[in-house]
Parts: sequence; C-alpha cells; structure tokens
Amino acid sequence: MEAAQSANIFLDVPCNGHGTCGKCKLRLIQGSVDMQKNYHLTDAETRKGFILACSSKIKENITVEVPSSRAESLNHMKIEGLTATKDEAVFAKTMELIRKKGLLSGSCVRKDYLELDVPTLDNSLPDWERVQSHLQKTKGYTRVFCGLSILRKIPRLLRDSSFRITITHLPEGTDKTTVINVEGENTTSKLYGVAIDVGTTSIAAFLVDLPNGNIIAKASAGNAQIKHGADIINRIVYATKGDGLRELNRAIIQETLNPLLRKLCLEAQIEKDEVCAFVAAGNTTMMHLLLGVYPDFLRREPYIPAFVTSPEMKARELGMEINSETPVYILPSVSSYVGGDITGGVLSSGLWSSDEKVLLLDLGTNGEIVLGNKDFMLTCACSAGPAFEGGEISCGMRASEGAIEKVKINRFDFEPELKTILNKKPQGICGSGIIDTVAELFKAGLIDSKGRISRKINSKRIRFDEYQIGEYVLAFAEESGIEKDITITDIDLDNFIRAKGAVYSAVSTLLNSIGMDFVEIDRILVAGGIGTNIDILNSITIGLFPDIPLDKYEYIGNSSLMGSYLTLISQDARKKAEEIASNMTYVELSTHPSYMNEFVSACFLPHTDVNRFPKVMEKFLKER
Amino acid sequence: MEAAQSANIFLDVPCNGHGTCGKCKLRLIQGSVDMQKNYHLTDAETRKGFILACSSKIKENITVEVPSSRAESLNHMKIEGLTATKDEAVFAKTMELIRKKGLLSGSCVRKDYLELDVPTLDNSLPDWERVQSHLQKTKGYTRVFCGLSILRKIPRLLRDSSFRITITHLPEGTDKTTVINVEGENTTSKLYGVAIDVGTTSIAAFLVDLPNGNIIAKASAGNAQIKHGADIINRIVYATKGDGLRELNRAIIQETLNPLLRKLCLEAQIEKDEVCAFVAAGNTTMMHLLLGVYPDFLRREPYIPAFVTSPEMKARELGMEINSETPVYILPSVSSYVGGDITGGVLSSGLWSSDEKVLLLDLGTNGEIVLGNKDFMLTCACSAGPAFEGGEISCGMRASEGAIEKVKINRFDFEPELKTILNKKPQGICGSGIIDTVAELFKAGLIDSKGRISRKINSKRIRFDEYQIGEYVLAFAEESGIEKDITITDIDLDNFIRAKGAVYSAVSTLLNSIGMDFVEIDRILVAGGIGTNIDILNSITIGLFPDIPLDKYEYIGNSSLMGSYLTLISQDARKKAEEIASNMTYVELSTHPSYMNEFVSACFLPHTDVNRFPKVMEKFLKER
Repeated sequence: MEAAQSANIFLDVPCNGHGTCGKCKLRLIQGSVDMQKNYHLTDAETRKGFILACSSKIKENITVEVPSSRAESLNHMKIEGLTATKDEAVFAKTMELIRKKGLLSGSCVRKDYLELDVPTLDNSLPDWERVQSHLQKTKGYTRVFCGLSILRKIPRLLRDSSFRITITHLPEGTDKTTVINVEGENTTSKLYGVAIDVGTTSIAAFLVDLPNGNIIAKASAGNAQIKHGADIINRIVYATKGDGLRELNRAIIQETLNPLLRKLCLEAQIEKDEVCAFVAAGNTTMMHLLLGVYPDFLRREPYIPAFVTSPEMKARELGMEINSETPVYILPSVSSYVGGDITGGVLSSGLWSSDEKVLLLDLGTNGEIVLGNKDFMLTCACSAGPAFEGGEISCGMRASEGAIEKVKINRFDFEPELKTILNKKPQGICGSGIIDTVAELFKAGLIDSKGRISRKINSKRIRFDEYQIGEYVLAFAEESGIEKDITITDIDLDNFIRAKGAVYSAVSTLLNSIGMDFVEIDRILVAGGIGTNIDILNSITIGLFPDIPLDKYEYIGNSSLMGSYLTLISQDARKKAEEIASNMTYVELSTHPSYMNEFVSACFLPHTDVNRFPKVMEKFLKER
Repeated sequence: MEAAQSANIFLDVPCNGHGTCGKCKLRLIQGSVDMQKNYHLTDAETRKGFILACSSKIKENITVEVPSSRAESLNHMKIEGLTATKDEAVFAKTMELIRKKGLLSGSCVRKDYLELDVPTLDNSLPDWERVQSHLQKTKGYTRVFCGLSILRKIPRLLRDSSFRITITHLPEGTDKTTVINVEGENTTSKLYGVAIDVGTTSIAAFLVDLPNGNIIAKASAGNAQIKHGADIINRIVYATKGDGLRELNRAIIQETLNPLLRKLCLEAQIEKDEVCAFVAAGNTTMMHLLLGVYPDFLRREPYIPAFVTSPEMKARELGMEINSETPVYILPSVSSYVGGDITGGVLSSGLWSSDEKVLLLDLGTNGEIVLGNKDFMLTCACSAGPAFEGGEISCGMRASEGAIEKVKINRFDFEPELKTILNKKPQGICGSGIIDTVAELFKAGLIDSKGRISRKINSKRIRFDEYQIGEYVLAFAEESGIEKDITITDIDLDNFIRAKGAVYSAVSTLLNSIGMDFVEIDRILVAGGIGTNIDILNSITIGLFPDIPLDKYEYIGNSSLMGSYLTLISQDARKKAEEIASNMTYVELSTHPSYMNEFVSACFLPHTDVNRFPKVMEKFLKER
C-alpha cells in the first residue's frame, strides 16, 4: 500500500490500511510477500495469487497487477445528481422556485468594456489611476481597488490594446468595486464561473456562462484523497500525521480539482484565466482540507470546527489553476458534521421557505439530515459510513460502469435479476444495488430480521464458508466482468444494517427532540451520492427510510452542487445561504439521551418496533 | 562581467557594461582575455594586469582578483541621513513639528489580548467565530476579517495556549478590523514595524517598537540591483530584457531587503514574524521594481507610471520575510520621476504646512526638487546622474569607509588636505568630497569656469596624459589605501559640472514657471544621499545651489526615511501623505521651453550669468 501510494498508483483503501475492508486486493505476478491471513481473501483467491496491499510486506522486488476495475473506477464515475439535474424538469423546478423567492439577482462578478483616453504630456494620469478615474466618471464607483497582479498586467496590456480594455470586477454596493482581471479589447461576452460540490468520495462541477447562467460544461471526478482513507474520520487521522494535511490538501487541489478545471475549460473551449468566479460546497471536513486547515478538533469532543464561514480568498492562495485573483467562496457550514453542502441543499431545495414540514436526507459517505420549514430548521449528522456508496461491502463499488444498481430476486428459485450501469457485465454493487439486494433477500425470506443468511433454504446461490459466514451469490464468476463471484456476505449485511440504522435513528431522534411524529412529515427530499436509482419502497422495506406514503418522497439529486451553482450566479443567494447556515439548529446525536437506544432498535429489518413500519408489515410479513 | 554576475559576485557597473565608466576593473592573475583598449585604464594599470570586466572576453580559464574596496563598499556604507536622524535634535524637531500638526494619532496596527471561553458541547462556536464574537462583545467590532493563514494557525494555537491569545489587527473605523496575526498568551507589548527608504543606490531601514514609536534598530545596505545598472534608466532598460524584471525584483527583495530585515530582527532580538507593519518610500522606478511592475513606460514619452498609489498588499505576496499577512504600505508617488520618497520628504520636513516659501532639494542618484508652502507645491525632477554619490567620476565612490569627504587645497602650494570617512587611508572620493574638490580647485584657480584643468600652473599635483586630458592628484599611490593615485580628471569635472548644472537649472526653471525669484526663497532644505557632510558654501561657490544667505540652508538628512517612519506609526500621517502627493503639481522639465537654455547656462562655474552669484563673485573672483 505504501509503495503504491508513494508511486501515486491509486488503491482504494477505505479502512486506511487496517486490513478490515479487503478492498486493496492485488494480484502478485512475480516475487513473494509476507502477508497475514485475512478473511477477506478466499482460498481460491489466495491460490490465484491475490494479496491485500495493506497487509503485505515486500521482501524482494515484486510485480503486481492492480485490478483495473478498482484503479479506474474513480475516473469513470457517474456524477451523482448530474443525471438528475440533467433532467431539465428538476433543474427548471429549482430555478423557478429560486426565482420566485427573488434570489436570482445580484451578480457577484461583472465585466465592463472601457475606452480610455490615450495619455499625453498634458493628460499624464498613471495607468491604474486612469482606470480608476474612468470607472468613477462612467460607472460612479468612487472606491476602486485591485490586487498586485493587475498592476503587473496593465502597463503592457493598455498599450498593446490601444487603451481599450475589459475589466472584470466585484462590485460591492454602488460606489465600491475591486478589479480582478483586465483583458485587451471587448471581452464582455466571455465571463465564466465554476461551481463545485466537494464530496468525501467524489467531486462534481459545473462550468457556467455567468451572463445568462447557462451550464456549459459538467464534469466529475473521484476525490484523490481517497488513497488516504475512505471516510472523514480516516482522513482527519491522516491529516494529523507528519505531512498528512499538506498531502490531503495537495490531493484535492492539485490532483482532483485542477485536472477537473482543465477538463471543463477544454470541453467548453475557454481559457482557464477566463474563470472569474468560484464557489465550493462540501462537508466541513472537506472544506478544512480544501483550505489546508488542521481538522483534528472536528472529531474530538466537543467537535469544534476551525471556521464555518470562510475568509475572502483568492484562487492563487489555494493553488487553483484559474484567474489568480478570482475570489473563492465557500458555502457556510453549520457545525463540524453539517457542512456547506447541506446549507446548499437547504437553499436549492427551498426547504427554508416551505410552508410544509420537510425532511431533507443527504446520503453520501456521510448522512446529514435537516428537518424544518420557513419557521424552524433542525439538523444533525450520522456517521453512516461509506456503505451507501459501496464502501465497507466486500463487493461494493461506486456507481460507475458495471455496477449493479437494481436487483430483483425471484421468490421461488431465488435467482437474481440484475441491472448494471451502462448494461456492462457486473463488476460489483453500488449503493442502490445494495439496498435492493437487502430488501429482496429480506422479502424472499433469504435473510432474517437481523440480516443473517438463512440456513433453512436450499439454493446454489447460498453458501457458507469454513467460519460459517454465509453469503448470497449475485453473479458467479462466469457471469461477472471480474472473473470472480460477486456476493453479499453476512459481514456486509451487518455493516449495511448498522449504516441504515444510523440514518433511521438519526431521523427519529431529530423528530423526538421536538416531539414530532413521522406522520407529521409532509415531504421527504432525498439527496446526495446514494444515487438517482434508489428504490424508495425498498429503502422503506429495510427500515432505512420511515414508512410514510411514497408520494411524499422526492429524489432531488446533488442539491449541494445546485446550491453551489445558485450562489455562483447570485449575490442574493449567498446572503440567503449565510442566513440559512446561521438559522439552522444543530442537534448533537452522540450526546443525545435517546440516540443510542434508537440506534440499537433500528439495527433490525425493518426495525425492532415493527409498529413503526405498518405498511411493510402488512404487505410483506403477511406474505411470509 | 556576465561571468561575475552569474556567479553572484558583486561588480559595480554603473554604465551597465558599456565600457564608459571604468568602474569594473579587475586584476587578471592567471590566463588571458581579449580586451578592447579603453581610456579608463592607464598603461601602468594595464601592465599590472588590470582589465575592465565589461569589455573583456574570456578565452580560457582565468583567475581574477576583485578589488575589495569595490566589492565590499556596498556592505559598509554609511546610512546617509541616519547620521542626521541619529542626531536627536533633528529627530526631535521633526517629531515636534508632526505632533503639533496632529499627525501622530491613529495607529495602523494594534494588538489585543483575548481570554476566550473554552468550548464545550453547549458552547460550540467554531474557533474563528469564537474570536469574532469575543471581539464584537468586548471591542465593538461588528465586522472582523482574516486571511487564510490565520485559519490555518488558530485550531492548534488556541488549544496550545488554553484559549488565551493575542491578536494583531488592522482597525478601520470603529466597527471593522482585519486580524493579521494570532499568538499564544499575552504578547501585547511586542508589536513591531519596519520603515524603509529604497534608494537607487542604497536602502536604509528603521525597526520600530510601535506602541511607543521608539526606533530600536537601524540598518542600511546597498541596493543589490546595482549590478544591473547604476541609475534608473539603466535599470529600466535591464527590466525590459528577457527575465530582467524578475531579476531586479529578486535583487531588491531577496538579496537586499530580506537580509536587511534579518539583520534588524537579529539586532533587536525579535522574531521576524513579530513585524506586523511595513512601509516603503522610494522613487517611482524603485517602487515599480519592488512590486515587480513593468517600468518601461516611465522612461518613454509621455512618461506614464503604472501606478502612483499602490494596492493593498501582503508581505507574503512580495516575498518579504516577515509575518505573512503584514500589509505593505507604499508612500504615494506624484509622477514618473517624483516618487514616494519625495512625498515622504515633504511630509516629514513640514513643507506642506509652512508659511514660508520652502525649496526642498533631494539629491541622491536622482535630483528631485519641491518648491512650495501650505498654499501650493510644485515639483520637478532632474537627471543629475550618480555624480553626487560618486558615480561617473573615475575615482568616485560611495560614502563608505575611506571615502574622501572633505577637501581643502592650499592656495599657494596647491597641496590638498583630506578628511576621509573613519579617517582611513583614502580609497576614492564621495559626493561631498567631489563638491569640495571642485570648489577648492576653482577657488585656487586650478580650473577655469568651464572646469578645465589649468595649463598655466606648475604643480606636481597637475598632469596631462597623451590625449591631453588633465588631472589633479588628490592622493598619490603611496598616500592612498588602494595602491594607486586618486585623481580628478577633466572628464570627471565635465561630468560633474553637467550634474550640478542639471540641478541648478531645474531649480531656476521651477522658479521661472511661477515667476518667482531666488531671493524670495525663505528656506532651502537639503535632503538625500548627497550626505551629511556637504559643504553648503562650496556648493554655492560651484553654482550647484543658489547664492542666497547660508542661514537659509538646512540639511535634513534622509527625509524619505523619516516620512516612511511617520506613516508607519500613524494612520493620520498616511492620509496626509496621500493628500500631499495629490496636491503636488508636477512640472515636466524636458518639455519646458526655458529648461534647455537654463541647463546650458548652468554648465559653468558658477554660472554663465555671474550676476546670479553676487556673493561668490564678490568673495572669490576678486581674490583672483
């Protein structure tokens, strides 16, 4: 693992090298290693030469094969939520809502074309003062500022372009502005901005034509920090060791964001210097790492972030490859575990202005929950872990090409019917596929309410190993695209049930805290990396989501990216986002008296208290 | 020359390698070079192996000796003007004046000690918001900003110091401030700033204890840009070629300023991170090069600077080795050839508030002149060249150890009486020594009014070479500290007379432009690198200064550095400096109809129109 990391070869190591996830399988081609026995490797795999990178000590020069499905998955990921926002209907609905609320005015950056007087001995104003004076006379700005790079640019630019220039500037009120770029000739029609959502697992971005708000390019990429841990806690731990913080900052900026920016600019055929606005939304830890701020106190009681609103920063200070003076805006966080991604989600979903009581569930590598309407907003976070994005599941993978995203299991012969992304041969299971699998296994009676594989059923799809750990085979080696069986094991089921229990118990604790019942929820919005293809009914069946009418559910895609987009194009949306962040009340679950009981009760299918799932009971338990 | 420069060995090349100054003499120890014959090398020198670095082509590996007097002179320079400001009387007088005008209030940076609440689960404000909230509650600042580096510092600092910290901040008005540093514990007594004067030839600096304004360390250094040209024009030309601008910026910041800052901090036993305020004054070209701004249009008609007031900059952006968020303030310039050094001089001299009509003459590598009082201010610049600092004079040197600074010549035997700096054996002549030499040669009848060495006088001190170029020997090789004769030649005299003519004609043109006569001048203030020991009477005798009563003259030292100091300790002084810069009317001499005639007339000793120098005529010409 260390050798691969230092050679910059990507290995997926969600457990950060503790030997507990089994994701870092490599095949040894030549040479030998010292490796501890690990239950994640079958005897067949061992015979074929598979080893775990994190648990193997190199004794001599070796040659290994890095499974391509792992190594490349990050670069071929679907942009969760982009599919939804591609859906013009969802996008249009959000824009309509935001427009109605009057939040689409107040552009954050603008361009103006200036035809300056050519200096003479009698009109010898200095270059910069000439720009200032022109802006005062023609636009009324009495206080005009700029950064050092502008001074460095103007002397030659003015003369090369016969004193006809276009300035890019950031107006504040009517009398003050700051010039952040100067270009020769009239370039007022070219003004671009980038909005990103920085997830723990992946980042997604829009390149926006600012004058009209059109999204002219979209892209996503895996977060290159993943090599240093799959979840927030592992990243924070990594940041505290040696040069870890710098490496994580480098991974997100240099290895993830800058290539993504290059890709966007290439796609839209623009120069990176033309990007003059930038907004990022993400969880609080991601924002600390993006800014290179020490994150350790986020995870230590009493869980204090270094900041929730960020200072004024320029792209240059963060090493971003866009116009150096471009201001970087970070959507404000609420607390250590409720970040600007949630603020963005509340903003773009319209929860903050709703008359109805809305529950917003953002399920990615972390789970964040907001409950509220125009009068109140409560929020909390649960450490669901990466299960909903395929992590901590032996055959789990992210929602990329070949991932099993829909599953049906025949009640009679227990044969599965799979749907994969892009209809490729299955390579693993992504979040929505796991939910389906668990629900279908449960409905078919193949697992009990504790999630254990049934020993009473005779099927070639069910088998037990020497340690009596059961598994269900979704695809045999010959059916799969990875030349090995794709299965879901007792251990996977246990991990997954704890993840779904964490989410459900967080929701119920939040409701409890204000004495509200599930039936009072008017609408449930599901957002985040859990994906477009999540089956709500199955999610209710397994007790991940509360058992309320299906028509109250809506999948709203990557609402964080939408929030980021809105604050990119509108100053008013930024003000609203700041208002939202400061108006949300954070409920700390770890110290909440009822949370632990709620969690334990929720670690069943669907729940210890079956009365909470009347429809599930009625429909399926009766069948059995 | 190129080999020495690329090896970072300092050679003094005022003519920038054109073979016209003869300053880059080296002695060849081994090997040979191709060198063009040059009148700056005597036959004796050639026999001894002396070559000019700029005119020699290396043919094989060679060994050369770099004369130590040149190489080290930069590092042992006297701080011009520091001697005067050391004079407590001059310093006290300036401070008294400025205090009277009410300009000593409004500190630009302050420190406050904060005892923050230790966070708990019930008091979980983020770190930065905790600082903001405390400042709002205890100091009334409702808008508190900071830079990225502060966020990066606080999480660990707060916990290492039990939430007792000292912040350094920049208040603007009563409700807004920007935090630029955080330290553990109470460090309010330690708050330092640096004021510098950036001259073309040398830079001088004060390290100041801000709470009380005490100067706790002083230092000066040669401007390392000198290797790329002695005067402004040669520097500008160098900046336009290849990587020249970057090299000049590097030379001033990395090779001059940063070592000087280290020296100051070492002397005062403080950490460089404790320097939280910085002000620089200098001519317009030096400020362009300090900021890395392309200077070429300063020297091209219509002489337009890129800026006269500088943007808000942080020390980090300029690569200065002090606290990275420290704001760098640049005293505002007036025009391409009247810089912030003059604004600073007008500020500290009190010219701007004077009832009397004051003439300020700042004579360093450039000559700048201000005429005015509380009602009006006119200014102009003349390209006097480096003669007043020992440049363009064959045995000229800067005012460092061993420089001849005072000269008397016996009227009967024509023997000189020399005084050198620190009474060392003479190594060359500095500015005040040249003025004395010319005046004494003139008074003794050894030169005529055109500055030509007399052929009528018989003295071992006077001799002529094969080209009939005369010279007067101030010190024979055996008397000197450099094992060769120290002389002043016809060519030196010609160069010097043009320099003094440029200054005098600038003054008279400025007076002409408002129809004022010399006799109406109430006071003449002499400032700048020309030095403390300038003999005013001799300066009048040779027609450098106007012939008005001696008691109207005053040497005020490095008034630019004093101006820099004042704006370091006082916000009000900054505002006043900005007012001064925008109130000064710049008179462009090069296009002024009468300037050329004035200049030609002034290139005599004392002047073509002897009636302008009645006292000189009366006193000395009668004697002859």
